[in-house]
Amino acid sequence: MADTPKRGGDKRERILAAAVKTFAKSGFYNAKVSEVASAAGVADGTIYLYFKNKDDLLISAFEDRMQMLNERLRQELSRTEGSAVTKLRKCLQLHLLLAIEAPDLAEFITVELRQSSKFIKEYDNQKFHEYLAIVVEVIKEGQSRGELRGDMEPWIATRALFGALDEMLLALVLRKEVTPQLVESRVAALERLFVDGLRQR
Amino acid sequence: MADTPKRGGDKRERILAAAVKTFAKSGFYNAKVSEVASAAGVADGTIYLYFKNKDDLLISAFEDRMQMLNERLRQELSRTEGSAVTKLRKCLQLHLLLAIEAPDLAEFITVELRQSSKFIKEYDNQKFHEYLAIVVEVIKEGQSRGELRGDMEPWIATRALFGALDEMLLALVLRKEVTPQLVESRVAALERLFVDGLRQR
Repeated sequence: MADTPKRGGDKRERILAAAVKTFAKSGFYNAKVSEVASAAGVADGTIYLYFKNKDDLLISAFEDRMQMLNERLRQELSRTEGSAVTKLRKCLQLHLLLAIEAPDLAEFITVELRQSSKFIKEYDNQKFHEYLAIVVEVIKEGQSRGELRGDMEPWIATRALFGALDEMLLALVLRKEVTPQLVESRVAALERLFVDGLRQR
Repeated sequence: MADTPKRGGDKRERILAAAVKTFAKSGFYNAKVSEVASAAGVADGTIYLYFKNKDDLLISAFEDRMQMLNERLRQELSRTEGSAVTKLRKCLQLHLLLAIEAPDLAEFITVELRQSSKFIKEYDNQKFHEYLAIVVEVIKEGQSRGELRGDMEPWIATRALFGALDEMLLALVLRKEVTPQLVESRVAALERLFVDGLRQR
């Protein structure tokens, strides 16, 4: 009995992992809660001990995964020596590498996530704001050190950067094969674009 | 009887306009074909004379609207004198102004469109590629005239630009009020970001 809480945690985690996989495979609207249960190896009713409904499951799976991504991004950034440009490159890289390292999660984020109107319209989406806030910090630091221009609102730049990354990740996710070289070339292109812009000098 | 084809055309157009409005209001998955019919003032069965199913209606509504947007973009660009930078600014402006000029369409494009897995995963999406191709042309022209740097793949830059625009339009659509001043400030920020980049000079 002593390990019940831990087991409970494992079960919740198993359900969330199964949800990401199932939503990526069947799509949010087509996926049935019973499919998630079967993928997680739990009874259908068990899901409802942890989650209110399918929307709640989607949001919880997103929050849980974003939490992991945010922690990883923070860790990697704290290890990254150098300028804001180097750190921005790290952000681009980690995001696009999802297409190789966690294709289900990449598909979940770019395709399935927008499929819950509830998610977009009503959900406050704290973890996503946290993600953006990490990038905003990198840009602010770069501005205060004079590496990045000061006349750019960090929040707008970050949101634009995220949009570009999301679209680029979507394009990668929809391909049949994604190589590390391809991801690296996309990272390099986005870095040039956002750091140096399109203007000829 | 002579005007039957025209009437048919009107009816199809009415159904498409009603579809955009209904999908924006109720969401793609919640919207019922009968709702679209009632908004268009036609019998439920009439919809199926023009469209196979709800996915087909979504795709047709998208193609029809994108066709209009593409034509408008082409027209405005042909009227825009000046450098590629001026033309890119026009692309940014037309896209974000949708939040004011056609809020239903803006919501349809940013929110509802991704709700049909079919749309994203299976649909070839010609009109969207046409839209991207118009922007690609602007960038290529700018490169050949030496206004834009030559070491940036036009397709990647365009896709990134679209992602940023889509995200920015989504952020506008989800706000309660959007003023022309707000749109203009977003256009200016995106122009600075994409044309001059983030690096301090």
